[in-house]
Order: sequence, then structure tokens, then C-alpha cells
Amino acid sequence: MSVRSLPPDELVDAARSGNRRAIGRLLTLVERGGAVADAITDLTHPLIGGAHVVGITGAPGAGKSTLTGQLTRILPEMGLTPAVLAVDPSSPLSGGAILGDRVRMDGVAGEEVFIRSVATRGHAGGLALSVPGAVRVFDAVGFDPVIIETVGVGQVEVDVVGAADTAVVVVNPGWGDAVQANKAGLLEVADVFVINKADRPGANDTRRDLELMLDLSHMSGQEDESGYRPPIIMTTATDGSGVSNVWDAVQAHRAHLDATGKLAERRAARLRYEVANRVDAALGARITAALDGYDLDPDRSPAAHAENVVGLITLS
Amino acid sequence: MSVRSLPPDELVDAARSGNRRAIGRLLTLVERGGAVADAITDLTHPLIGGAHVVGITGAPGAGKSTLTGQLTRILPEMGLTPAVLAVDPSSPLSGGAILGDRVRMDGVAGEEVFIRSVATRGHAGGLALSVPGAVRVFDAVGFDPVIIETVGVGQVEVDVVGAADTAVVVVNPGWGDAVQANKAGLLEVADVFVINKADRPGANDTRRDLELMLDLSHMSGQEDESGYRPPIIMTTATDGSGVSNVWDAVQAHRAHLDATGKLAERRAARLRYEVANRVDAALGARITAALDGYDLDPDRSPAAHAENVVGLITLS
Repeated sequence: MSVRSLPPDELVDAARSGNRRAIGRLLTLVERGGAVADAITDLTHPLIGGAHVVGITGAPGAGKSTLTGQLTRILPEMGLTPAVLAVDPSSPLSGGAILGDRVRMDGVAGEEVFIRSVATRGHAGGLALSVPGAVRVFDAVGFDPVIIETVGVGQVEVDVVGAADTAVVVVNPGWGDAVQANKAGLLEVADVFVINKADRPGANDTRRDLELMLDLSHMSGQEDESGYRPPIIMTTATDGSGVSNVWDAVQAHRAHLDATGKLAERRAARLRYEVANRVDAALGARITAALDGYDLDPDRSPAAHAENVVGLITLS
Repeated sequence: MSVRSLPPDELVDAARSGNRRAIGRLLTLVERGGAVADAITDLTHPLIGGAHVVGITGAPGAGKSTLTGQLTRILPEMGLTPAVLAVDPSSPLSGGAILGDRVRMDGVAGEEVFIRSVATRGHAGGLALSVPGAVRVFDAVGFDPVIIETVGVGQVEVDVVGAADTAVVVVNPGWGDAVQANKAGLLEVADVFVINKADRPGANDTRRDLELMLDLSHMSGQEDESGYRPPIIMTTATDGSGVSNVWDAVQAHRAHLDATGKLAERRAARLRYEVANRVDAALGARITAALDGYDLDPDRSPAAHAENVVGLITLS
């Protein structure tokens, strides 16, 4: 029987019993948005919390995909069942898919790893909605950890990773890479730093740059008041060197979250971020509708127009 | 007398009579948002339309800043008075400023070029509001053209350039650069393509890739129905080669806009985009306020929470 004909509750049951096509179907429906997506969200929300959500980000070409690929090789050997959400459309993991409604399984060490690629553009509500929806499905179905891989450029991309339980920021050796990561806002969200391609010249300079920035953020009071300081892990993801250290650092961060009660805080902030984005998307549809029926006199100031349109929406 | 003490109307008069500090002050006030910014918007909106607004975008390192710098050298020689809005915080033009409330003048060929760097993060309403506001000030004060330089990664960055009168997309030779630009949505917004670093190997391959993509978009009906096809200009911005050809192509595109009546269409779309973003920002503040007073039960679905919060806002 095709999973396409299943109602949401049976689809969730099938997915939880391991039906890969049911999982893919759930992801597609959640990405699509609307009433069915909301029904799935309502069904899956009570089932979440078991997965550690790990965000991996960095500049294009930093080696996020290779690192993620290596993690999905070692995690099943530890008895874990990782799922990957590849947001970067140029990721080798996603096969370069621009549109994301497809599912791929990689047979690695006898285990299947669920990899889903999502489009960075064109979804209703964008990444800020599609990512939490897909993470919720993976979590509810029983995957752990759920790894979000996204390119660290653009506010939404950074926010999405910052909302994970643990955010891993990948940089490369070379002048200014750490500075660029800082400018992109990645320093603020990083729980673990990875210097990938650490066999190249300049790796120690980059480490020193990062340590300096962490010292500065400590001095200016930005550091976690609980004393947590993001570790810096050196990797060569292409041959797997250091990758298990990355996972150890993720685990150590998780232990810190558990010990300090910060896990609940972070997840509350994530829920709030998602609700805010849902409200924003719902109101965005109303903005478009209001503007469609509004006479946009080009000689009038946009400030005046905006005030009128806000009135049309909040009075509706 | 300090410009700081001037009311908005006198500030606009001072800026229009060439007072550089008054211009900088207007830009700062507009970026800051709020009632004073709206007053300046109301005052300057009737004064705009004289500037040709040119967006220049491309991947980090593509040479946008160098190209922009070269344009600001040749344009004053043609009697033009360019202003530059550098959105890329890593731009050499902006001096690497992360925060943007500063102004720099470059004395080039005896002329001053007004360069303003704006932050990509942290502004009220973000780039989607700060860019049109700054462009309006430059236009009203009498600069022409107004050049917006922004890194072509992230939806807002692409949208901002797509809303210009003429959008210039800069790519580099090398496998896949044109493909990456396409994935980032740059192909759709480009009115002029520049292959910079054209002295490097692969420039002709990149040109062929772009031509192919333009052919495909033509076949699928995406091309401008008026028959306009974005030209591809080869440059070596570091030594100025081809830069005057870029300006010729921008002029040719402008002539096309004038001849077809598309200039008014494009500017109407730009106004609509700005109004939509203003409404979004205004409602965003209400979302935050509504969420602050809302009990976000972690066990309830975000779909249910969002519905409640939308109700709180539209009933207010």
C-alpha cells in the first residue's frame, strides 16, 4: 500500500515503525506547509525531545559536508541513528539538488543514514520554518542525533544553526577566516569550533585568532556565565582525522547543557523562534493580500503606505 | 553650527546644498529607524527619481569592491556624481567596518565619492529597510548613480540588488561559478553579467556556461518578453580592463528601461517591496511584544501557539 494514501496519524505510526518512505512523505508534507503540515506538527510535537540536535555551519567550501559525512560513518558504530538535514544546496551530500523533496539513503558500515536535502529558497516561510519542521519529524520518528548542515552566510542560516542544541562552526586555516566567521555572526552561536583542513599552513594561526576572539568575548562578558568556553578541534575531514574529537566535544557540550539546565532553556528559545517565524509567515501572507488590494501611489512616502497597510491587517 | 541640532527639514536642505556632514547625519538617522526616520522619508520621497540605482552583487571575493572602486574612478570623469552603499562588511571599500554609522570620502580625480558602509546585521528591519532608506537619501540629495554593493548570498541580499534599476552580477572564471550564481538566484535578477578576473583560465568556459543558462531561460520563457538579454562583460577590475564596458552595458540597460516603460514598473515594484518590508518590520515588533506576554507551554504544538499569537496581534 502506498504511503501517499495514509492519513497523517497512520503516516506517523508507519514512520515510527521504520518505514523510510513514510518518513520521506512526512518530510515532504511538512515542508509544503498548510493544514496537513500543521496536523503533522500537532501529532509529532508530543513525541520529540529524544534527539540531540546538532547544527554544523561554516563558509562555502569549509568542509562541512565532508565532516558531516564522516560523522555519519562513525555514529552508527556507537549505536546511534543519525539523520542529516542538508540545507546547503551545493552540498555533495545532497547531490547538488536545488529542490529538496527527495530522500537519499547511504549504506555505510551496514547502516542506513537518512539524508534529506532542503532548498534554501522558495519554501513557504523559508528555512526558518522548513528546518524546525523537518527536525521535529526526524526527532519524533526516533533519529538521534539530528544533524543540520547549513552554509553559514545569511542571517536565517546562522539563526537556524544557533537554535540547535549544539552549534558547530567550521573554519579553515588561512588569513582572515576566523575574522570572516566572526563578522558573519558565527562566533556568537558557536558551541564547538572546528578548524578543518588542519594539515594546511596557517592552522595554528587560525586557532590563535579564535582563542583571541574567545578571550575578548570573555572580557566583554559575552561568554556563557556558567564558564563554558567553546573548544577548538582540529580536523582533516577528508581522511577522518579528528572527527571523533568533534563528536566528543559535542557530547561534552551536551553534558554541560544537561548539568546546568540549559537544555530546556535552549529548546524553549528554539520553540519561541519557530512560533515567531510561523506568526511572521502567517502575517506575511496577509501583507501580500493587503498589498494586492491596495493602491500604491508612487508619489506617496512608503512610511505613509506602510501605516495604512498595517491598519488594514490588524483591523481584519 | 553642528548638523546634529538641525531638524529634519533643515538637515535635508543642508544635505542638498552639499553639506557632507548633513548627508551622513541623514543616513544615520534613516538607518536608525523610528519617527525621525519616517519624517526624513516623507521629506525626501518627493525628491527622488533622478538617480539611476545600480546593484552590484556576487560571491565573496568575486571582485565586486574592486569593480565598484574602478567605477567610482571613471564616473566622475563623465560628469556623474556617484554614491556607494557598501553592504558587504568585508568590503575593502568600507574599511571592514562591521557597524555602519560612518562616512568616508575618497578623493579621486579631484572628485569626492560618497561611500557609506551599512551593517548586514543588527539594524531594525535589517537590510531590506536600511538599503532603500539610504538609497532614497542619496537620490534626494542629488547623487547619480547610486551604487549598492552587496554580497550575493542570502535571500535579502539578492532581493535588495534585484530591486535596483539595473542589477550587475559578478562571477569569476572557474568550474561551477556560474552554476553557483544560478543556485543563489542571481541569474534571475541579473541585467548585466560581469566575468571578473577574466585574465584567469576558464573565463571562456564560464562565459559559455552563462550563455547556456541564458539560452535555457529563454527557451523556458523566463527571458524578458521585450527581448532584452543580459550581456556578459569580461573585466580585470584590478587593472581597470573592461570596466568602462560595464558602465556602457548599464547605460544600455537603462535605455532599454526607458524605451519600454519598464523603469516605472521596476520602481513601483521596488516601492512595493519596501512597503511590504516596512509592514513586516512593524508587525515583527508586535510579534515580539505579543510573545513576551504569552505563555509558551513547551508541550503544546507551535502550530497552535502561532494561531493564538496571530489572533492576539490582529485583534489588537
